[in-house]
Amino acid sequence: MTDAAQAHLDNHFMQMALTLAERGRFTAAPNPCVGCVIVAQQEVVGSGYHERPGEPHAEVFALREAGARAHGATAYVTLEPCSHFGRTPPCADGLIKAKVSRVVVALQDPNPLVAGQGIERLRAAGIQVDVGVLETAARQLNLGFISRMERQLPWVRLKMAMSLDGRTALSNGRSQWITGEQARLDVHRYRACSGAVLTSARTVLMDQARMTARHPEAQQQPLRVLLDRRAEVAVDHPFFAISTPVLRVVDATVEDRAHWPAHVQTLRVPSAQQRLPLQSVLAELAQQQINEVWTECGAELAGALVSADLVDEYVIYMAPKLLGDSSRGLLQLPEFSQLEHVPQLHFQSFTRLGEDIRINALPLHRSVMARGEVTS
Amino acid sequence: MTDAAQAHLDNHFMQMALTLAERGRFTAAPNPCVGCVIVAQQEVVGSGYHERPGEPHAEVFALREAGARAHGATAYVTLEPCSHFGRTPPCADGLIKAKVSRVVVALQDPNPLVAGQGIERLRAAGIQVDVGVLETAARQLNLGFISRMERQLPWVRLKMAMSLDGRTALSNGRSQWITGEQARLDVHRYRACSGAVLTSARTVLMDQARMTARHPEAQQQPLRVLLDRRAEVAVDHPFFAISTPVLRVVDATVEDRAHWPAHVQTLRVPSAQQRLPLQSVLAELAQQQINEVWTECGAELAGALVSADLVDEYVIYMAPKLLGDSSRGLLQLPEFSQLEHVPQLHFQSFTRLGEDIRINALPLHRSVMARGEVTS
Repeated sequence: MTDAAQAHLDNHFMQMALTLAERGRFTAAPNPCVGCVIVAQQEVVGSGYHERPGEPHAEVFALREAGARAHGATAYVTLEPCSHFGRTPPCADGLIKAKVSRVVVALQDPNPLVAGQGIERLRAAGIQVDVGVLETAARQLNLGFISRMERQLPWVRLKMAMSLDGRTALSNGRSQWITGEQARLDVHRYRACSGAVLTSARTVLMDQARMTARHPEAQQQPLRVLLDRRAEVAVDHPFFAISTPVLRVVDATVEDRAHWPAHVQTLRVPSAQQRLPLQSVLAELAQQQINEVWTECGAELAGALVSADLVDEYVIYMAPKLLGDSSRGLLQLPEFSQLEHVPQLHFQSFTRLGEDIRINALPLHRSVMARGEVTS
Repeated sequence: MTDAAQAHLDNHFMQMALTLAERGRFTAAPNPCVGCVIVAQQEVVGSGYHERPGEPHAEVFALREAGARAHGATAYVTLEPCSHFGRTPPCADGLIKAKVSRVVVALQDPNPLVAGQGIERLRAAGIQVDVGVLETAARQLNLGFISRMERQLPWVRLKMAMSLDGRTALSNGRSQWITGEQARLDVHRYRACSGAVLTSARTVLMDQARMTARHPEAQQQPLRVLLDRRAEVAVDHPFFAISTPVLRVVDATVEDRAHWPAHVQTLRVPSAQQRLPLQSVLAELAQQQINEVWTECGAELAGALVSADLVDEYVIYMAPKLLGDSSRGLLQLPEFSQLEHVPQLHFQSFTRLGEDIRINALPLHRSVMARGEVTS
């Protein structure tokens, strides 16, 4: 076979493995989404994906299905096979035992402490290993896991809903609804596949928001993280009536005598300049194995996150409406004197949702990271 | 041939005629862009388009090329062939004389006074005429001409350049450049194929704008229409230094003693509530055979045009930047108390221009018109 034909086949089967991996989108966290396809004589003889923590890895399912046909076959895996005993035995060993002759890996393990060891193990057993096929797509699939491994921070998405002229509400505060039903369903889908939803006391109090994931595909509820420096959201607020886990973040010095139900944890942190230390809060979420954080808040917190360069991805729902200059703006940012100083983004994609459009944009420097051109 | 196969061929050849028509984009005005393809035994035997006023129509070029092969052939024309003697003899007669057996027309002549007469003339001569093939695309190509014929108003495009958060300049007024080079070139392309560029005294004074079309494909310069109610832009301003035609619109009562060069015409109109009568000005432009008006102005005039429902198409260049709430907004509109009252648009297209995006949007009711579902 020519190199070009082989590259074409490799792309084809890796794409299949990525599509499988995607099925773990709502369940695999805090583990990464991983898919595996085993191919003998250009035919798929086994496939699998990682569904949820504690359950077998993608390779295990694929090898089981392939049985003896794995002998001499090629395994396509979207992430480097593990080399350590976790809740399951190492997948590298499984592939060696099954006597595959070649392993194609999309992405090396992003954990700097283990990266490359699974690949080494395979190569030491005489297996040909090729790394980097569809690597960008494989990174995209696990941005949160990669971010946590590489930066000890979750991947932070900032959601905003606005009119074409960048307004989020009328001057009287009315904002329900600027965007349509499809856009709102899409928000719930993002919530459902995020480890945590981050919001502010102001948003919860103003919009009576509950921040749960109400989506048909939702399989688990995100941790709801409430930034409530002055402990303004009372224990009897509807936000707490729902018994999915909540993390309240309050100032270390605030008095808080309420009796909180078991699903509500409180994190006390020292404020600086009347603001909670956002980066520390995010680092704490990474510690708690949160890969992806979905942020929904007002112009003030949004502006603070942007100014602190803590937003990894902007998810903006834009409605084809005009609200005019007297309406409320999107972001509180410091006044800039030069255009060169304003935050620069990169438009990643535009997705129509009914009459609205979803814009995914990344900070210019972060967009390079997401493409895998640099790794930190 | 089956009906489906015939419909497929009809679409194919009409698309070819539309592509030809498009070549007149920079030169045909005030005439419409028209293309014609003559097909005998599924083979193109002649083609043409209307290049500029005074020169032959598309059908003439196509028939010339086809010669005797037009006999029994099918002619595809993007607009109903004319039936009257203008600067050239009627094209319907040309097609009859050439003995074509069938004429396929994308769009009936939008001029209510002549609509259908060319078709009648062809049918009376025993020629089969089918109307409506790719009609929507044919309307899109000549929105300005159609608007002028049907409404006695030009098609008004409002251009705006903004950041992702809907801001047009920093608080200190700096706006050069929010968008990149490709977006700015695209603006000049639009200017070049518009009959007029409409702007305000404020924009000309603030940005030292000249509003000429600086584009490699530009073949003629648009009429530059300057709304200058109080005659604030002096005769020695660089705007007037360029000798392409200018129409100044000033209040009827304003004193204006300067000696204006020949390329500057002044239109005096009575203001109402300290505002020039925008609709009358646009109607005057239609009278002067302007099909398409390209508007570049600030938040005030833009808001006035939107509020008066005089914008037919929004052309918004959005840069992936964030300027924040202290920056200048896009549109001055009245304060709304209900979301149901705000102007509703329809996103027509999204076009990447370098790092920026161009959004074409139509007022919801106008978007129906542009699709040809209603004609007034």
